[in-house]
Amino acid sequence: MKIATLLATGLTLTWASHVQALDQIVEKQSFPMPSYTTVGGRTIKDVRIGYETYGTLNAAKTNAILVPHFFSGTSHVAGKYKADDKVAGYWDAIVGPGKPLDTDKYFIIGVDSLCNLNTRDSVTITTGPASINPDTGRPYGMSFPVVQIRDFVNVQKALIEHLGISQLYAVAGLSMGGIQSWEWGASYPDMVQRVIAVVSTPVLGPYSIATVRQWADAVMLDAKWNKGDYYGKEEPVDGLTLAFKLINIESRQPDWADAAFGRKPADPAADPGADFANQYAIEKWLEDNSRARAKATDANQFICLARANELFQAGGKPTLEEGLAAIKAKVLLIPDRRDLLLFPEYSRQARDILLRQGKTVEYFELPGQNGHLDGVTGITEAGPTISRFLAQ
Amino acid sequence: MKIATLLATGLTLTWASHVQALDQIVEKQSFPMPSYTTVGGRTIKDVRIGYETYGTLNAAKTNAILVPHFFSGTSHVAGKYKADDKVAGYWDAIVGPGKPLDTDKYFIIGVDSLCNLNTRDSVTITTGPASINPDTGRPYGMSFPVVQIRDFVNVQKALIEHLGISQLYAVAGLSMGGIQSWEWGASYPDMVQRVIAVVSTPVLGPYSIATVRQWADAVMLDAKWNKGDYYGKEEPVDGLTLAFKLINIESRQPDWADAAFGRKPADPAADPGADFANQYAIEKWLEDNSRARAKATDANQFICLARANELFQAGGKPTLEEGLAAIKAKVLLIPDRRDLLLFPEYSRQARDILLRQGKTVEYFELPGQNGHLDGVTGITEAGPTISRFLAQ
Repeated sequence: MKIATLLATGLTLTWASHVQALDQIVEKQSFPMPSYTTVGGRTIKDVRIGYETYGTLNAAKTNAILVPHFFSGTSHVAGKYKADDKVAGYWDAIVGPGKPLDTDKYFIIGVDSLCNLNTRDSVTITTGPASINPDTGRPYGMSFPVVQIRDFVNVQKALIEHLGISQLYAVAGLSMGGIQSWEWGASYPDMVQRVIAVVSTPVLGPYSIATVRQWADAVMLDAKWNKGDYYGKEEPVDGLTLAFKLINIESRQPDWADAAFGRKPADPAADPGADFANQYAIEKWLEDNSRARAKATDANQFICLARANELFQAGGKPTLEEGLAAIKAKVLLIPDRRDLLLFPEYSRQARDILLRQGKTVEYFELPGQNGHLDGVTGITEAGPTISRFLAQ
Repeated sequence: MKIATLLATGLTLTWASHVQALDQIVEKQSFPMPSYTTVGGRTIKDVRIGYETYGTLNAAKTNAILVPHFFSGTSHVAGKYKADDKVAGYWDAIVGPGKPLDTDKYFIIGVDSLCNLNTRDSVTITTGPASINPDTGRPYGMSFPVVQIRDFVNVQKALIEHLGISQLYAVAGLSMGGIQSWEWGASYPDMVQRVIAVVSTPVLGPYSIATVRQWADAVMLDAKWNKGDYYGKEEPVDGLTLAFKLINIESRQPDWADAAFGRKPADPAADPGADFANQYAIEKWLEDNSRARAKATDANQFICLARANELFQAGGKPTLEEGLAAIKAKVLLIPDRRDLLLFPEYSRQARDILLRQGKTVEYFELPGQNGHLDGVTGITEAGPTISRFLAQ
């Protein structure tokens, strides 16, 4: 389970303590497309993505809320696959009867992205470099087309239309999920009534491009990556481990580390000052957590996803302002006060553009201690704001 | 030249525009110690570090200001080695007659650290893993002892005593240079009258430990690192390149990237959306700049230096408060408002501890756009504060 891995150690406790189960057993479903042509003009055959739903679609089909996932996430937004699953979907705390994403009112759809990282997870369904190319019978590897966030949205749009839905009550997501929400609002303004973007941004500026690229660089530095040709051989787990270390640290902040680890050594009998092999507690946690995540991840899917993020500017116009000008949805921005990955300034800049354009925008800052990760672990703080925003 | 590399592209211009040359040709000198025993109890033979001086030591030997260097820096604080050097020492803007580090009043000493990165620089003199072990006739590699910031300070103390100086008017430095200034104040309180710590911290907390460790992890991920045994073979330049990419980005901030690069591609004819090999301008700059720095750096010295930083807590007592309690110096803290590597909060926390202990402390926040790097490029903003502090 990726979610279990994501929230390993101290965070599991924090998380578990405020989770109330959706009390629903959910099932992954598959949406197939015989072919899909990318924004860049490349055609991919046999595209398939996974999705799961919570609540009931009303007869008029007007109560659907789409929830795309974050970079390392999946469509498992809430609930459990089996009653004895240790952890529920990542936003279970705000999905369920009477909760902000109220399953008594709304029909919630979680959806897997193209190039999803978790190809070794039996319940994630995705298409990307690790998929078999029907023309060769072998994985695409780095011959898979460059895809963009707009491609993710276009495949989701085909799913939505397949479900008979012509307009979404809302699109809501955190981090890359929020990025997809922005893209929905800017690219299909008549199909989206509300956008909720948590710890997110409407554009990857150059600083964030560089940050994401360094994750991919770490993967490619591993000799086992072998220019993407590693299928059937040893895989670049060491490179992916460093990539997840970077993600783990950048998506948190110093107060979290001080509280969770301090300057304690991993082993009181092994002083880091005595031998380079001796670690601090935070180093051992980072290594163990990141390696577990690396083992669940396909390296080329990771690189594909990183590039999709680098390419992102909502609406795909020459300027961000032009892209956002198309939006008709009401927008709710929920940054974190101490986000060191997608800084709260990014949401403030977006808010100011929307206000200058005369649009309806609300802003709420998460007050937690976990930085970017508060988009998962601290989301209940935004619960009342989300409830009120959705009721408008 | 490392400094030229550090400040390559746009920054060179920014820098050059406010540099007034020290108007002094400086010369590197070597300080040898037949042997030095580390805080950890290991003895290193034939230790040697470089230093250079600006201004004149007065007869009473009471006007010396020691300036240790930052992580990737050297003892080249100011001036030029030859009249036609393209760039002067890194703090040349504040060193010279009438400047804050006034060479008409003070005797400024720049000093190389142990494990200095720049072993391929003909003017840097250092001892570390790349040095020849006299017992084997081969480089130490990873058999070099783990050293601490206190070891750097102890070797500097031997140099100071060799120069006949029993008390320093001040110790001043940026980033790791500030870290060494803190250590001087806490470990040898009777020898230090003033501490100036720019974009620095009195302790590496766990978040910063993890950050620094990831730089070392990048080096070690390169198969050519070969557990430190690469002398006479191909060196791990790719791993060092990723390490310097991380440093380059973490020591700046988004406003810098927006102004310098925006979302421009490196080549207008090579769209990053068309092919993974196509880069954004910031990616190409990062690659070129970081690779140049990597080629000038020894990998094991880098790892040695990273660990020395991880181990740092001023004074080496069980708590930071106990370590700082020893300080007798007046302290001037100069963080940067938007430092994403050693956050300004670190300096505020240190200030609050010193104030609770009844010590004399001043605080000035650099207002620049370059994040941590403002400790170099934006230092003139703190000039009047430094001048006044030194006059007290």
